Amino acid sequence: MTTPHGVVQTPAFMPVGTRGAVKAVTARDLEDLGAEIILGNTYHLYLKPGDALIARCAGLHKFIGWNRPILTDSGGYQVFSLAAMRRIDDEGATFRSHIDGSLHLLTPERAVDIQAQLGSDIAMVLDECVGPPPGSDPGRSFTHLGSDPGQSVTHISADVARIAMERSAVWAERARRRQLQLRDDPGSAPEVTIMNPGQAQFGIIQGGTDPGLRTESVQKTLEVGFEAYAIGGLSVGEPVDVMYDVVAHTAPRLPDDRPRYLMGTGMPDDLVECVARGIDLFDCVLPTRNARNGQLLTSRGPMAIKNARYAEDMAPPDPDCTCYTCRHFSRAYLRHLFVVGEMTAATLNSLHNIHFYLDTMRRIREAIVFGSFEKLRREFHQTFSRRPQI
Amino acid sequence: MTTPHGVVQTPAFMPVGTRGAVKAVTARDLEDLGAEIILGNTYHLYLKPGDALIARCAGLHKFIGWNRPILTDSGGYQVFSLAAMRRIDDEGATFRSHIDGSLHLLTPERAVDIQAQLGSDIAMVLDECVGPPPGSDPGRSFTHLGSDPGQSVTHISADVARIAMERSAVWAERARRRQLQLRDDPGSAPEVTIMNPGQAQFGIIQGGTDPGLRTESVQKTLEVGFEAYAIGGLSVGEPVDVMYDVVAHTAPRLPDDRPRYLMGTGMPDDLVECVARGIDLFDCVLPTRNARNGQLLTSRGPMAIKNARYAEDMAPPDPDCTCYTCRHFSRAYLRHLFVVGEMTAATLNSLHNIHFYLDTMRRIREAIVFGSFEKLRREFHQTFSRRPQI
Repeated sequence: MTTPHGVVQTPAFMPVGTRGAVKAVTARDLEDLGAEIILGNTYHLYLKPGDALIARCAGLHKFIGWNRPILTDSGGYQVFSLAAMRRIDDEGATFRSHIDGSLHLLTPERAVDIQAQLGSDIAMVLDECVGPPPGSDPGRSFTHLGSDPGQSVTHISADVARIAMERSAVWAERARRRQLQLRDDPGSAPEVTIMNPGQAQFGIIQGGTDPGLRTESVQKTLEVGFEAYAIGGLSVGEPVDVMYDVVAHTAPRLPDDRPRYLMGTGMPDDLVECVARGIDLFDCVLPTRNARNGQLLTSRGPMAIKNARYAEDMAPPDPDCTCYTCRHFSRAYLRHLFVVGEMTAATLNSLHNIHFYLDTMRRIREAIVFGSFEKLRREFHQTFSRRPQI
Repeated sequence: MTTPHGVVQTPAFMPVGTRGAVKAVTARDLEDLGAEIILGNTYHLYLKPGDALIARCAGLHKFIGWNRPILTDSGGYQVFSLAAMRRIDDEGATFRSHIDGSLHLLTPERAVDIQAQLGSDIAMVLDECVGPPPGSDPGRSFTHLGSDPGQSVTHISADVARIAMERSAVWAERARRRQLQLRDDPGSAPEVTIMNPGQAQFGIIQGGTDPGLRTESVQKTLEVGFEAYAIGGLSVGEPVDVMYDVVAHTAPRLPDDRPRYLMGTGMPDDLVECVARGIDLFDCVLPTRNARNGQLLTSRGPMAIKNARYAEDMAPPDPDCTCYTCRHFSRAYLRHLFVVGEMTAATLNSLHNIHFYLDTMRRIREAIVFGSFEKLRREFHQTFSRRPQI
């Protein structure tokens, strides 16, 4: 995938840099880890420090000191899951900031403008997310780990899913029109400072868990026409098999010469399983969030580092791993840092988990090239798939 | 200064790794910054994870993944400033853990044994600290910055200072006897696992701000005889000129072929001024603690990064600085990270502040070699000394 800030090898995983930083690590760490692209959250950056300020500071890349590609979401997901109040109508989403309660209106056009001012390499359209039930912890919906699959099913009626899908399609058209206006006739929008004229725009397929709605959403979104397409509205509490089925249904209907991006997924085995179903691009807070909560993702399964059994365990967290953390530190030390609450615990755990994700993607790419992807997939399933924590 | 884990160029500054980690940075960061020695806090490591556990994990160096020299304090300072309860008598210090209220007895011998099990390169003797008044925030006493010098004077009566000095001298003798026992006849103390047979032991000069008491403490401590000597009981709230005077009085009375260590000091100009008075070794939490509080120490003076004036300031924090933070990030970005509470703020600020301290020591060493130390001292005084924050 080629962007104004360089090439991204796909399938790729994007570490999440919510507020202009991937939590607990530095840009230098990310470069060392081989991250080729990161994700920034428009909702957070819009509220603080603001897209206008970032534009005056030469755009998001310069502002955060990251010269490789950046994808920004539209802000919609956080409006739906994080804002203090939200009201959706055809115009857009009216919401109150979770920081100071201030009132904001996010429209499809405004989401385009904000991302134009951020200057990301890939901008996402505003869509209506019906996944996370209001008031739910948005983070929980990302992780299947340790949760009872039956418990986390979100019941979304077909009506709600249809309305959201149709509204998203209308919004997609408005967003595209605005994007093309800024691209073709920037002088007509003097209020927007376009920081990255080569910015691509991705459309998003909605439709919940209904294959018919998904097909319809694909048709409507392809009709609008974007540089590439994402699958939204998954990993929001539905059973993992349902998620896989929706991906298997939707991905092949998207152009195979464009990257297909599965938003907000997932567990390490989700990466492998969804690549098998045609996905090229992933993002998820799981590796960094779980790191801060003391969960290491390893080739032998997830590991709760605070477990007393590691108190004197001088082995590296993952003996098969070549990351900085595993090459230099023991389970005993990482447990100690976590138990006493040292920030360095978050850093070392995050370095490992991000490495594990990026290394998984490297292995997937290699396996595809060498024709051994199905073998890798079986191995991964046996050694990792949702087994109890070690 | 030569230690079992390598040579330390003096004068040197030791970043403080309280609980087995210098807060917010990794060992790799510290190595990159050129740190040649760090300090570990015996009080914290004794309580968690415990010196016996660290010994079973092959000693502090292996446990924390740091192969360069480590100095450990005796734990006394934290008992006096941090413990939930403390009672001092001739035997030692009885205290309750600030973590779980458990009861502990720290004697001069026990402080030796704990540090023997940690395996640091330099162990400090247990002394009686009368500096910080009970219940005071131990951190505040470290920083002169922004405080009214008059306000922070601690009044310690000559009697209290004499009793503490005399008790420290007796404790020094007991500590030395125990150290030599472990060194010469380790079999006689099978309950202690000696992790570093080459460990040095430093005595500590006490005596408050009374030159007579300081002279007496020097005599008593030299009589006991240690590998080298430290000046304790300063930077605990006394006016900075008094601190300088005590250093000027005490340092020349210590052997000039051994490093002289000024404990717990201080501000950047304190480093220069105390080197001028004969000091070779420093430690202080100030660079890392102030970093976490958003204060950058720069060649132009201290900088409060959260200041609104930096919101769109794309200059590096310190244009004369060559650290990672200053080479890659702007004041605007660091302010943003600090304001939104990203951990990366603590990391980037700490990298800068530690670099500033270590670089100051490098400049001091160079100036000494080239005979330009007095010039450096004047410059430093003009550009840094206690001026208002920028």
